[in-house]
Amino acid sequence: MNSINSYIENNKERFLNELIDLLKIPSISADSAYKGEVKKTAEAVKEQLELAGCDKVEIHPTNGHPIVYGEKIIDPNLPTVLVYGHYDVQPPDPLDLWDSEPFNPVIKPTALHPEGAIFARGACDDKGQMYMHVKALEYMVKEQKLPCNVKFMIEGEEEVGSEHLAGFIKANKDKLKNDVILISDTGMIAKDVPSITTGLRGLSYVEVEVTGPNRDLHSGLYGGAVANPINILSNMIASLHDENNHITIPGFYDKVEELSDEERAKMAEAPFSLDQYKASIDIDAVHGETGFTTNERNSIRPTLDVNGIWGGYIGEGAKTVLPSKAYAKISMRLVPNQDWEEITALFQSHFERIAPKSVRVKVTPHHGGQGYVTPIDSIGYQAASKAYEQTFGKTPIPQRSGGSIPIVALFEQELKSKTILMGFGLDSDAIHSPNEHFGVWNYLKGIETIPWFYKHFAELSQ
Amino acid sequence: MNSINSYIENNKERFLNELIDLLKIPSISADSAYKGEVKKTAEAVKEQLELAGCDKVEIHPTNGHPIVYGEKIIDPNLPTVLVYGHYDVQPPDPLDLWDSEPFNPVIKPTALHPEGAIFARGACDDKGQMYMHVKALEYMVKEQKLPCNVKFMIEGEEEVGSEHLAGFIKANKDKLKNDVILISDTGMIAKDVPSITTGLRGLSYVEVEVTGPNRDLHSGLYGGAVANPINILSNMIASLHDENNHITIPGFYDKVEELSDEERAKMAEAPFSLDQYKASIDIDAVHGETGFTTNERNSIRPTLDVNGIWGGYIGEGAKTVLPSKAYAKISMRLVPNQDWEEITALFQSHFERIAPKSVRVKVTPHHGGQGYVTPIDSIGYQAASKAYEQTFGKTPIPQRSGGSIPIVALFEQELKSKTILMGFGLDSDAIHSPNEHFGVWNYLKGIETIPWFYKHFAELSQ
Repeated sequence: MNSINSYIENNKERFLNELIDLLKIPSISADSAYKGEVKKTAEAVKEQLELAGCDKVEIHPTNGHPIVYGEKIIDPNLPTVLVYGHYDVQPPDPLDLWDSEPFNPVIKPTALHPEGAIFARGACDDKGQMYMHVKALEYMVKEQKLPCNVKFMIEGEEEVGSEHLAGFIKANKDKLKNDVILISDTGMIAKDVPSITTGLRGLSYVEVEVTGPNRDLHSGLYGGAVANPINILSNMIASLHDENNHITIPGFYDKVEELSDEERAKMAEAPFSLDQYKASIDIDAVHGETGFTTNERNSIRPTLDVNGIWGGYIGEGAKTVLPSKAYAKISMRLVPNQDWEEITALFQSHFERIAPKSVRVKVTPHHGGQGYVTPIDSIGYQAASKAYEQTFGKTPIPQRSGGSIPIVALFEQELKSKTILMGFGLDSDAIHSPNEHFGVWNYLKGIETIPWFYKHFAELSQ
Repeated sequence: MNSINSYIENNKERFLNELIDLLKIPSISADSAYKGEVKKTAEAVKEQLELAGCDKVEIHPTNGHPIVYGEKIIDPNLPTVLVYGHYDVQPPDPLDLWDSEPFNPVIKPTALHPEGAIFARGACDDKGQMYMHVKALEYMVKEQKLPCNVKFMIEGEEEVGSEHLAGFIKANKDKLKNDVILISDTGMIAKDVPSITTGLRGLSYVEVEVTGPNRDLHSGLYGGAVANPINILSNMIASLHDENNHITIPGFYDKVEELSDEERAKMAEAPFSLDQYKASIDIDAVHGETGFTTNERNSIRPTLDVNGIWGGYIGEGAKTVLPSKAYAKISMRLVPNQDWEEITALFQSHFERIAPKSVRVKVTPHHGGQGYVTPIDSIGYQAASKAYEQTFGKTPIPQRSGGSIPIVALFEQELKSKTILMGFGLDSDAIHSPNEHFGVWNYLKGIETIPWFYKHFAELSQ
């Protein structure tokens, strides 16, 4: 299958130009003013899937943005890969921090990408990574190298919470039947360090409100005698971690999965410089749970962070107010087996229980999602690992991501299959930020690696 | 001296009308657009002091608003009372919450004031309370009852920090020489419970900034491994009190004055219903330092309150950010003998010392002032106490106020004399708020009580 390299060599200008055309359409799912552009993008994806060799390509309307579906069934007895991706993008704000127009893609070299990177909103997340799969399919169909069946499900609401995807999946379980789900919407450790994301954290996001007196009071006249909701909220937040930075909510760790020694040892193989890490965000020391490394703390361990806090007088100068209320937004990242709804309920009852009688507390659950993990001994993982070995010349490192992609857990629940996360992006790609970009090398390397996954997956499935 | 009652009876309409005329001038010191009105008010005060019998009445210009000075020296060998007050007022905003125009005074009955209250900005704070002294002087001069010398110093910048008063005092120590300073700019416990404010708390106000990473991070990717400045700030704030609600800053209590049993017992005589207190601000329990009552906690004990806190995402909905910075405004109310600059320095070094290495902390001192206390065995206090006994038929209760009037400490430092705070306002007068008012009964009771103070002070000073 070395022909993939020559196929890329002969077609790379077209591969880049087609992606650039797709990036020019501002498919901002969060902004209803762009509804027409989102639809236009769905139509462009449909057209490209057809050109790549997909059959039965359809645009499924939803109450939000449409889902594009297509398939290439070569033999019902062969295994089936379901590719998931999304064609919608984050809003490009703040616009003034972009060096070029977010929807007028340009290719420029960078220190990490001397061969050039495509700068545009969605270049990496996820139009670029999704389109690698379309081009890999094109190669396999044109060169008759497709070893199994393939289905595509490309949605337009990932950046706004995939609201209508669950309904589509539940209504189309037969159509979406598959043996493995393949997604490129994550990153790898470095250009020369391939990695496969084997875990995602779940999420529970809540907002808390602490009420003291029924109105703002003069802190001189009442201070010291009446509970100050900011002080109380600070106490309550502080009490959520113990001196080892363990979370103190009773039952919080009950279902936390203990990682196998093998996977933990593999994780530790990932090249990591604590000095570089600290320097990159300008901190003097890291901070986290006793007994775990930095890379473990932000991936295989559950955490609790305050994402926002406010109360009292926050303008210029001074006001001696003892406020009536204080608020915080708190999120917990969860690991596989922790159920986000159960954790949300544990948080709520704990937070209410620890409140002193001098205040009233309201906890409002916001949203959440389950964590996810793929065992590294699965056929899907092994096929991906072999594919990277072939194109990078080294075994990829299994990597737990600290982030959350709640739909992956949904896929497993509804479709009963595991997801393989083959990401080709880099942390420096600035997804969700100004000057998002995707290395040309990464884009083409993805197109090169994906057909090897199909080959090994089909062989290992026999 | 029962003639004061008939004098008031014969002149009360005029006393009210003169005050109403003064209240009509919008002397808003904070707003430079009202500079001319503030000056007009100073001129009106000058005129009234002259009419009441003061000599050498002058308007002293400052770089801000002018100070009005006047005196009536009947015998250099007799003691001298210095009356301090202010003719400037707080801004009336929010205007839409006023039931009548703030500078168009009206007299209306209320539940607490069936005989009527004057509704206007400054009615109680401090034009009304200051003017009681002008009318008491008028009576004593006209009826030849003035038993000692009197000086008036009425300023126009109290509501904006008395910026130019210190300079005036330091430059005029001889002119202002006195044996006691008399101020009516506080309140009393209830209409039938006279009280004398014997203490004011000092203040130290600081702003703190906690910096973690140099930019906002994704809480999924970094959460658990990098110190979250909001969580750290919450921990640091929580650690500023121990389980008995004592403040943990080393040295904080070193100079705290222990109250005499006599004064503490007198304080406890003040009528106080904890149930009513809790109901008035809708709380289920009070909260404060172990070993002290509610009235002690908010007056004779130093306290630490967070007046404002902010950091991270505080808009609608959710954002999973691990913010770079978190902030708080923190104020400490201090008791006599605690030096506010020393306490500010203690806070700063403690707060910097307790910060973990994973964050950087900046403490910015904002402003402050010294606390103040008048001993209840002083001649001034005894004279005031006897005056109240005469007009209220009961001994007034010494009361520590939790609030701060930094100039009182300045008076003692520069003029070496004690201040007696004879307040006739009520908590319900809504000073600094919409619908500020002052009971007609309270206004006239002040005019009635003040001459008795002079009589007793002169007699006790012999």
